[in-house]
Amino acid sequence: MEERQLIQEKLTQAAEILNEQDVDVWLTFVRETAMQPDPALELIYGSDMTWQSAFLLTKSGERIAIVGHFDSANLYELDVYTQIIGYHEGIRAHLVTELERLQPLSIAINYSESNVAADGLSHGLYRLLCQHLNGTPFAERLISAEQINFALRGRKSPTEVARIRTAIASTQQLFDEVEAFVRPGMTQRQIAAFVQQRMAELGLDYSWPKPFNPIVTCGPHSSIGHAAPGDVALEKGHLLHMDLGVRQNGYASDLQRMWYVLDDGEESAPPEVQRAFDVVAGAIQTGGAHMKAGMPGWQVDEVARDFIVDHGYPEFMHAFGHMMGRVAHDGGTVLGPRWEKYKGTCELPVEVGNVFTLELHVVVADRGMMSLEEDVLVTETGIEYLSTPQKALRYLHA
Amino acid sequence: MEERQLIQEKLTQAAEILNEQDVDVWLTFVRETAMQPDPALELIYGSDMTWQSAFLLTKSGERIAIVGHFDSANLYELDVYTQIIGYHEGIRAHLVTELERLQPLSIAINYSESNVAADGLSHGLYRLLCQHLNGTPFAERLISAEQINFALRGRKSPTEVARIRTAIASTQQLFDEVEAFVRPGMTQRQIAAFVQQRMAELGLDYSWPKPFNPIVTCGPHSSIGHAAPGDVALEKGHLLHMDLGVRQNGYASDLQRMWYVLDDGEESAPPEVQRAFDVVAGAIQTGGAHMKAGMPGWQVDEVARDFIVDHGYPEFMHAFGHMMGRVAHDGGTVLGPRWEKYKGTCELPVEVGNVFTLELHVVVADRGMMSLEEDVLVTETGIEYLSTPQKALRYLHA
Repeated sequence: MEERQLIQEKLTQAAEILNEQDVDVWLTFVRETAMQPDPALELIYGSDMTWQSAFLLTKSGERIAIVGHFDSANLYELDVYTQIIGYHEGIRAHLVTELERLQPLSIAINYSESNVAADGLSHGLYRLLCQHLNGTPFAERLISAEQINFALRGRKSPTEVARIRTAIASTQQLFDEVEAFVRPGMTQRQIAAFVQQRMAELGLDYSWPKPFNPIVTCGPHSSIGHAAPGDVALEKGHLLHMDLGVRQNGYASDLQRMWYVLDDGEESAPPEVQRAFDVVAGAIQTGGAHMKAGMPGWQVDEVARDFIVDHGYPEFMHAFGHMMGRVAHDGGTVLGPRWEKYKGTCELPVEVGNVFTLELHVVVADRGMMSLEEDVLVTETGIEYLSTPQKALRYLHA
Repeated sequence: MEERQLIQEKLTQAAEILNEQDVDVWLTFVRETAMQPDPALELIYGSDMTWQSAFLLTKSGERIAIVGHFDSANLYELDVYTQIIGYHEGIRAHLVTELERLQPLSIAINYSESNVAADGLSHGLYRLLCQHLNGTPFAERLISAEQINFALRGRKSPTEVARIRTAIASTQQLFDEVEAFVRPGMTQRQIAAFVQQRMAELGLDYSWPKPFNPIVTCGPHSSIGHAAPGDVALEKGHLLHMDLGVRQNGYASDLQRMWYVLDDGEESAPPEVQRAFDVVAGAIQTGGAHMKAGMPGWQVDEVARDFIVDHGYPEFMHAFGHMMGRVAHDGGTVLGPRWEKYKGTCELPVEVGNVFTLELHVVVADRGMMSLEEDVLVTETGIEYLSTPQKALRYLHA
């Protein structure tokens, strides 16, 4: 089955990364993951666990799962772990026994101050793990698996890229449907409801939470940011903006598109609207053109940010892009300025195989927000656009 | 709107609990909650946050939200926080300023070794919070909000109980539909697919992950526990078991029901099947009848466990029950034996306003698993059944 293939692919990659980073054991320690998910688990197992569970991946390629007995059937069925230990009463003895056999000098666990996708271990579980390892030499050998998670999640395998392409294609198809559906007078809520209904019909999931997906901005009166669609109606002479991300086969898209509603007698957008579009699209293209594997995130951001400011617009108060994968905001490197909130993420590098969004906006007085977003894959030589970049303003007629 | 009412209800309750426990400030510190959810957030806010966010609730009833600027629109719309601070570059200065104004002697944060619903703070975020508070007196004043979360989540408000009743009613309706649909020869997978299709049509969500919901056990050949439905077909003379939980308006059900497929010439189940049903149903009734507010979880379990063993069956290797609310496994008290894996949870008390499952099983040789589960509300005098308990084995005809 395709899901098993994907997990195999990531587990093989994980062993390579452990060797590359010279870490003996990577331990993913979880419980009740439906309520307390660890983003690492979806990469190395792809399903949920109920009781305390330890997934041990070693540099030598061993894959050990110590899980509650009633959770073990699915692991046997998945058939990618080399050892499956199902326990009834408690995990501690089994975990210590396996570590004693492996004798790791370093045990990487999932915490990170800056990368949410590498920070799946709760503080309570961390304390519990320390209790389990109390009195063994292993308590002192815990290190952060930040770099392992960063590499494993960020470097997309061919199957992962293929799934992202599919999600993007579906999203672009939805934008075309939106264009055919929308008329002036409709509210943000009506437009969003149309998209959500089509997503339900197509069996598409959401790459960020449904209440704010899609984000619909109609003209100058709707709030900017992560706001739920409200009752502002689309008017002639206004901009329509949509930020939409779907999740298909477990992988995400995240795209923004722009339309202008022609006013009576207009055949094209007013000059200030056209100029804003050109500058926003130009900034994305310019930022993308300068993007290279090895660069820290902030350098990519700086190119696009300077482009906006050099063209006389105020700088946007968000990052130029983020990693995308399992969900829209997939952790890892942020293409953002060196502000406090991006600390530790905007210094991370861009790597081959990473998928990023490129996005930014300006505001056009009395017209609305002009905001575009594309999805790109980092290659050996630069980037490849996974979306078809919006290069011209789209028009809606009354 | 009803959602706002619910959040108001829980925030009022939170202030009461802070006074009861004499805690000055309860701090819920989150980021990117779509990937890294904190179970406390759904009680006190009900939506997702992108950037680092601090929700400060005080003993005196102040409700302060410090959030990324682009996330603030929804907080204004919800209109239940007394102070909303939207920041652009970083949260640290705002957080420290508010704490300096409040001068709390105790700041409770969301970690717990034993209660998953009180353990929403990741280890990385804990470290980050310590960095933010470094050099202030507040770093030394952090304590666990385990008891706050336990009380707030566990003590269901009238609105919460009403929503749970609705989810249970929908689940019982689905069991009736299953009974009308199922025929011998159908596989676990077919039966589960029927339920999932009906849930989609009814707009019902899942109270545990969809791949294992419902769990369908057909006769003696299907695996027991949290296994995805497979290709085992239902046969005459076998038991059909279904474990189903729906989530409706954000609240869960979790119920198990039993059917016996009459064999050729049979008009009722064989004696060993009937006896197993009677003992399982009897154990639940007996356990429930002894359940009282103030008891630790393990004492309730013990009554039901002894009943099973006294009737000559091997004890079940799981807990007799768990708290239910936002999801099926809702953290808090477990009605479980004093095994390592229930440590810290089976000693917690049963409180008035809690909702619990009562569940257990025995295995009937050559027939299959006999497992029932009911949902109950703890009252001043004992318990009230929220489900209509299954008191007779249900029959399926060929």
